[in-house]
Amino acid sequence: MIYFVTGNKGKFQEAKDILGDVEQKNLGYTEIQAESLEEVTVFGMKEVVVKQDGAVMIEDAGLFIEALNGFPGVYSAYVFDTIGNEGILKLMRDVDNRRAVFRSVLGYVEQGVELQLFKGELWGEITTRPRGTGGFGYDPIFEVEGKTIAEMSLEEKNQISHRAASIHALERWLSARK
Amino acid sequence: MIYFVTGNKGKFQEAKDILGDVEQKNLGYTEIQAESLEEVTVFGMKEVVVKQDGAVMIEDAGLFIEALNGFPGVYSAYVFDTIGNEGILKLMRDVDNRRAVFRSVLGYVEQGVELQLFKGELWGEITTRPRGTGGFGYDPIFEVEGKTIAEMSLEEKNQISHRAASIHALERWLSARK
Repeated sequence: MIYFVTGNKGKFQEAKDILGDVEQKNLGYTEIQAESLEEVTVFGMKEVVVKQDGAVMIEDAGLFIEALNGFPGVYSAYVFDTIGNEGILKLMRDVDNRRAVFRSVLGYVEQGVELQLFKGELWGEITTRPRGTGGFGYDPIFEVEGKTIAEMSLEEKNQISHRAASIHALERWLSARK
Repeated sequence: MIYFVTGNKGKFQEAKDILGDVEQKNLGYTEIQAESLEEVTVFGMKEVVVKQDGAVMIEDAGLFIEALNGFPGVYSAYVFDTIGNEGILKLMRDVDNRRAVFRSVLGYVEQGVELQLFKGELWGEITTRPRGTGGFGYDPIFEVEGKTIAEMSLEEKNQISHRAASIHALERWLSARK
């Protein structure tokens, strides 16, 4: 059984669907200001392992827009809460290069095993207006092959999402050593 | 003598001009993701006091724009490095409420004295285009009584700036207990 330290129910459900034997622990940990999700995850894990025994995972994700030098990146949650999708679309007005990537970094530890990092990403494009009612966060303004994430079913989303990719990478790692 | 832990020469110079006996220490410390500058400063200080004996100060600052729900706030440095003043002006296009505030929080400790926080702020308005060549960061798009910070002399800036205010607050506290 793996403890997933997160306050985000959607993230937990995604992990549970893929891994099965997962339990949510809303313990909270310090997220640092850093250039990369990897740094945030490594720092956070140092705090989490002190609070929680057993097999433990945490996950951090962000949207990185090429034309905006990677903004909102590691601060995606804060940026969404302040300027939202409306702000992102305004920043992208008249911008030709609309390429962006959702990144997920998952940290995993258990006794006797050093910290493992698993990554997932999903490339797509920033739309010119929000479309769809599914998903959350930036999903309505991020499209892959003509469809925004918010226009996909949960099943479709979970087949291609950055988070699903990092969780599947963990799953493969766990299976490989059995 | 006070050690100012910062990698920013401009900040250090501003403190030196006001306090006199200050020495720059570029030690680095963890900046956390938090809602407020106070939280960032308190967390940072816990790390700094372990690395540096004596009287120590650190300072964190940010620009909080009312119409953008406080964005870019505690992430002002990152936002400047990615979308810059151009991005802020784009976000503020057609926005009527242009009120914004620069905030500075200074943390100070010495042996036998618990952490002291000093605050300074400077209210102003976001311009519609950059003006002036002085200062740095958001200075060209932030105006006070018709003049951007970048249009002011260093002397003028240091009389009204948020950072000068928090440093002066420390100075008064130090003098008062003599």
